[in-house]
Amino acid sequence: MDHDHRIEQILGDLVDRRTANPCPSHLAAAVRDAVFPGGARVRPRLCLAVAEACGDDRPAMSAAAASAIELMHCASLVHDDMPCFDDADTRRGKPSIHQRHGAGVALLTGDALIVLAYQALAEAGSVSPTRHLTLSHILGEASGLARGIVAGQAMEVESSIEIEAYHRAKTGALFGAATMLGAAAAGHDPAPWAQLGDRIGQAYQIVDDIRDMTLDSDALGKPAGQDARLARPSAVQTYGALAARARFDGLLADIVTDIPACPGAEALRARIRDESASFFPALSAEPAA
Amino acid sequence: MDHDHRIEQILGDLVDRRTANPCPSHLAAAVRDAVFPGGARVRPRLCLAVAEACGDDRPAMSAAAASAIELMHCASLVHDDMPCFDDADTRRGKPSIHQRHGAGVALLTGDALIVLAYQALAEAGSVSPTRHLTLSHILGEASGLARGIVAGQAMEVESSIEIEAYHRAKTGALFGAATMLGAAAAGHDPAPWAQLGDRIGQAYQIVDDIRDMTLDSDALGKPAGQDARLARPSAVQTYGALAARARFDGLLADIVTDIPACPGAEALRARIRDESASFFPALSAEPAA
Repeated sequence: MDHDHRIEQILGDLVDRRTANPCPSHLAAAVRDAVFPGGARVRPRLCLAVAEACGDDRPAMSAAAASAIELMHCASLVHDDMPCFDDADTRRGKPSIHQRHGAGVALLTGDALIVLAYQALAEAGSVSPTRHLTLSHILGEASGLARGIVAGQAMEVESSIEIEAYHRAKTGALFGAATMLGAAAAGHDPAPWAQLGDRIGQAYQIVDDIRDMTLDSDALGKPAGQDARLARPSAVQTYGALAARARFDGLLADIVTDIPACPGAEALRARIRDESASFFPALSAEPAA
Repeated sequence: MDHDHRIEQILGDLVDRRTANPCPSHLAAAVRDAVFPGGARVRPRLCLAVAEACGDDRPAMSAAAASAIELMHCASLVHDDMPCFDDADTRRGKPSIHQRHGAGVALLTGDALIVLAYQALAEAGSVSPTRHLTLSHILGEASGLARGIVAGQAMEVESSIEIEAYHRAKTGALFGAATMLGAAAAGHDPAPWAQLGDRIGQAYQIVDDIRDMTLDSDALGKPAGQDARLARPSAVQTYGALAARARFDGLLADIVTDIPACPGAEALRARIRDESASFFPALSAEPAA
């Protein structure tokens, strides 16, 4: 089964079961809208690609890891879009969750998705409680205090932001977790996989910043020009467009040499090279996550 | 060490470490304000009392379980108070988190606390990965879809609410988790402990409803009359004040017979009887959680 199909199936099954009766109907609808249809699912695809490179000897664990990272990402989008934060009316070309369901339900939807990410891990945990514990550690570090995605979002309200720490927490953390979770789900030491994910995250963020500045809202599927409007640090603004592009190319070159020793290292290297178009949203008009 | 002191020490250590540099300073301050000073800490005290009754052979696990349940409770208070939900300006006699730190930071504070609850469990997990997995399961069921506290809060926006299901999800779930977590942390089967926590939660909710209707905001430390203002189902409104009180007394009688067989059952029974004043917020003027 290809990874894209596998991811939709895992997420679909999980969300269907957890939003069934007695789940309140508004919350159930909002949770479904927050997860489906998805964006590029780049984090879970990366997670599964790494798990496969590491042998993927416990597919239930890699499936759980992939869905957990995507659910945490979806949670961050729902809360990020809320009026008290970015106040973004659209996401993935549709009204954002608070626009469709109200801010109160959007708030609970994000909360439910954070918990659901951990529930996904726990559901597969009996396969290996020890691996489950490692996955829980990685997910927490990537999501919470003091360096995770929540901390990255919180840097936006500080009086000054160091752009690399900001991007590392806001974007890099979940990408780093994607590769580490994939390795750990397959029983490999996750630590050597952190750098690969971190660099992919940095590259992804640069593309995102360029797209935010150069594409319109229709092409993006979400409001364009948000970095400037919200005075957010952006690679384009900090380095200039040409230097940002050069930085991206440099990261891409590093990424293929970053892959740690593992049974499927060669295949993963080839996959990242071939699929960089799908791991990285096109600089032209194609919906991003 | 008495339970009260132990809980403050565990929470203090955890929050200090996780809000240290490089945690963004506004988020760090808001997280501290959301956890300290606490309310009655009734859920973690209940959790530790049950763990002790079950032998508490792994104190690091019961400590983690107690802090996880309190952090999840604090998260729900921060998000519940937000303008898009209850819009409550005060909590525990002080300005609520969004009043002090802004709605954006309050949003992230709740998210960080949910993740921190799971981080607390993971930090102690190596003591027993198998018990850690059980604790994760219980925390998820009590917090998320389809029956946890998030679902309970979401029932408030449904067109009709069944009061018992509402109270069971919004209040009972975390109380049920408190007793189950305590038992599981000590290596006991958590299932028989669910009913005790559930009934304590129901009793607690009735007291809360009576207080909301009869005390003023100064005595409550939060806005009074919120159930009526927000058209929330309330035991007092549904059953009338006298019947609600009779229901509370009935629950209290059941609670002492609910305790499952365990080494410290007698001591726990005596403790609940003696301490019911502290497990249940006074019907007179005394700050609640």
